[in-house]
Amino acid sequence: MIFTELEISDVRFPTSRSLDGSDAMNPDPDYSAAYVVLRTDVGDGHEGHGFAFTIGRGNDVQAAAIASLRPYVVGRPVATVLADLGGFWRELVHDSQLRWLGPEKGVMHMAIAAVVNALWDLRAKREGLPVWRLLSRLSPEELVDLVDFRYLDDALTREEALQLLRAAQPGRAEREEHLLRAGYPAYTTSPGWLGYDDEKLRRLCKEAVADGFGQIKLKVGADLADDVRRMTIARQACGPDFPIAVDANQRWDVPTAIRWMRELARFDPHWIEEPTSPDDLLGHATIARELAPMRVATGEHVANRVVFKQLLQLDAISYLQIDATRVAGVNENVAILLLAAKFGVPVCPHAGGVGLCELVQHLAMFDYVAVSGEMTDRVIEYVDHLHEHFVDPVVIRDGRYVAPVAPGFSTTIRPRTLAEYAYPHGRVWSGAAPAEEAVGGTPEPGRPGPEMAS
Amino acid sequence: MIFTELEISDVRFPTSRSLDGSDAMNPDPDYSAAYVVLRTDVGDGHEGHGFAFTIGRGNDVQAAAIASLRPYVVGRPVATVLADLGGFWRELVHDSQLRWLGPEKGVMHMAIAAVVNALWDLRAKREGLPVWRLLSRLSPEELVDLVDFRYLDDALTREEALQLLRAAQPGRAEREEHLLRAGYPAYTTSPGWLGYDDEKLRRLCKEAVADGFGQIKLKVGADLADDVRRMTIARQACGPDFPIAVDANQRWDVPTAIRWMRELARFDPHWIEEPTSPDDLLGHATIARELAPMRVATGEHVANRVVFKQLLQLDAISYLQIDATRVAGVNENVAILLLAAKFGVPVCPHAGGVGLCELVQHLAMFDYVAVSGEMTDRVIEYVDHLHEHFVDPVVIRDGRYVAPVAPGFSTTIRPRTLAEYAYPHGRVWSGAAPAEEAVGGTPEPGRPGPEMAS
Repeated sequence: MIFTELEISDVRFPTSRSLDGSDAMNPDPDYSAAYVVLRTDVGDGHEGHGFAFTIGRGNDVQAAAIASLRPYVVGRPVATVLADLGGFWRELVHDSQLRWLGPEKGVMHMAIAAVVNALWDLRAKREGLPVWRLLSRLSPEELVDLVDFRYLDDALTREEALQLLRAAQPGRAEREEHLLRAGYPAYTTSPGWLGYDDEKLRRLCKEAVADGFGQIKLKVGADLADDVRRMTIARQACGPDFPIAVDANQRWDVPTAIRWMRELARFDPHWIEEPTSPDDLLGHATIARELAPMRVATGEHVANRVVFKQLLQLDAISYLQIDATRVAGVNENVAILLLAAKFGVPVCPHAGGVGLCELVQHLAMFDYVAVSGEMTDRVIEYVDHLHEHFVDPVVIRDGRYVAPVAPGFSTTIRPRTLAEYAYPHGRVWSGAAPAEEAVGGTPEPGRPGPEMAS
Repeated sequence: MIFTELEISDVRFPTSRSLDGSDAMNPDPDYSAAYVVLRTDVGDGHEGHGFAFTIGRGNDVQAAAIASLRPYVVGRPVATVLADLGGFWRELVHDSQLRWLGPEKGVMHMAIAAVVNALWDLRAKREGLPVWRLLSRLSPEELVDLVDFRYLDDALTREEALQLLRAAQPGRAEREEHLLRAGYPAYTTSPGWLGYDDEKLRRLCKEAVADGFGQIKLKVGADLADDVRRMTIARQACGPDFPIAVDANQRWDVPTAIRWMRELARFDPHWIEEPTSPDDLLGHATIARELAPMRVATGEHVANRVVFKQLLQLDAISYLQIDATRVAGVNENVAILLLAAKFGVPVCPHAGGVGLCELVQHLAMFDYVAVSGEMTDRVIEYVDHLHEHFVDPVVIRDGRYVAPVAPGFSTTIRPRTLAEYAYPHGRVWSGAAPAEEAVGGTPEPGRPGPEMAS
């Protein structure tokens, strides 16, 4: 029983056509997926679905990178690969020739994410479990076998990881039950797009609170006077103690970040996200030190576990924001969750874009059940966008992610969407569909769109 | 007068077929180039040639990334683009959608390198100068305009860069003359491949000294007892004061690097290169601190100027190894040379692979003329491999790079090579040429090949 096919689609949503919002770093994203379907000759009807998320141009490059991994999958025995996903991960990431293209970063690393996540989707479907429950039932030994500790040893050894996981074993079942009952807290970025007028900002802030969200996030960084005015409104609308995070999307250099956020400190932002380049670890540390006790968050553009390790070693972040498709899939995120647990830093996953909410909920829930064992001071980002294209979309109730129960990784996009949004020949791109329909409904007049992947 | 064509070739040299050497991280590189030719309708016969270097699999992904940049070049006015290569660089690197695929790292960043370097080749050919002399004749203002200071300000401002360049203006002409007369010191990695037997190592060490090279480099990291024995031989053969660098090719984690190099310290290695992950800046700093006064070198896999900035801020490296196609071409390397000069760290470029020697000599020579003004304690790597495929190959005389005088960037590969080594349909790959001929000559019996790009 072997893998017979690794099918790739270039799927793009023309979010830039009808949505005029976004921020100065990202004026016109077309949320896209370089999408993978793995097929086998097992005959059980199960496929593995996964993708890398991009924001438009270059999605074809991402697809080409995934195609270069085809020989590592097609023809291989299904059971053997799925039984040793740690070994498979190492094989892909440490391929000596492909490694040159990173190493462990950018297009090639995200391609590995797409394939690895598709394998997890398949494995979970075969075992009849959602990925979060599948991971949560693995033994500590099985979990550390998923992780590549190369370059991590000075911060976290395999033995330390085992101890962490063993310490979290008691209570796994109760926490799983708790998640199925109560879900996981979400926060919403919806009120905070830069382009909203003040009245709309005020209204959406109040709605977010009324809808039960425990936190909101505002985009900042384009104009300081605007940011001060918008934070004043948001603080008034949400109340003095409501967590309001702000996000600069890498807009600033280090001195600017410090200067700017000193002006916004009086509004007590819950965190400042991506104040500068995601590669500038020392910059993040300097910003965190200068602005303390203000908290710094980052992660959606952090290339790999080695970079996260250093952000933790430097005490540069108070919240670690994992991304489901930036690093090399589930396995690397297990490593990052373990690092965060070791350093006692809460994980608040990045989501938005297309399908990132669907994926990352599984990782946060697994973290709660089997790694950190904590839900306090943790939230998963939520953006209400493009979920209708998924077979098993996220469900938000009372400001919380409802725990998914369908087997798999919630990665499967509807076949009709795959056909209509195929780039450049799908109906949506060849001109047959109007823009409003193309992005999944008529946007509210004047409603700016999400930026980047939030 | 516009750019009419951006032609891409996937060129691979089957170096893994007949050369059995290399190291444990890179057992079988097929040195490759994702190669770009820019054509115009100017009618002066000039083309711009550039490439990204890879080591085989994934060279097609690299080519696809370059193809995604075609719309930024084809149709654009030649004179306008060449007159503002700083602006063009920013446009490519900060394209909001493509940026998501890095940002500023990996396949997409190397694609920008290929195109930017091709533009510099074209500009230099039009001006009738080799790139190093073209750059060396730009004013300090023109040079800083090439550089993107975003994310650098906390280490180097535009004004500081201007001051550095102005301070180096006196003596530019003398240093240019000196280079034309005396060339630039080279070091050779040829004696040090892991697979050599002891007698061959001894002989090649002696030959390198006799040939006038001022330094050699040995691969280490596979087996400590072997390394001790080989260093003993090399030290005996070269003499007590001859610089012998060692290179671990990212093989170790931090504790292993420290332990291993303490054992080799008694041989007084000139530097330890790539002791661990290129992303582990703190790891490099720890290794440098623990092993001081031993010197640490790195750079061939450092993703961009922001990462180099931090290596310098951390005092983690004593030698900075620029690479011509890893970061986004000439412009980013100008930024990195300025950073190195600000921090007083000598630049010793990485070379080898295919064409890296050809490119990087221009950058080192420009640094000597117009940036650092220094040649002391600086060497350019040299590996004697694949130069015969270039129209204007490097020339080594008495252990020094002879300054190139032909207009351009020495990037142009012979048309016959482009045809025969085209992957997968060129004569070499379709099976019509024997392996020995394919790699450019019968290898010496038992001679292991170069690893990675040295």
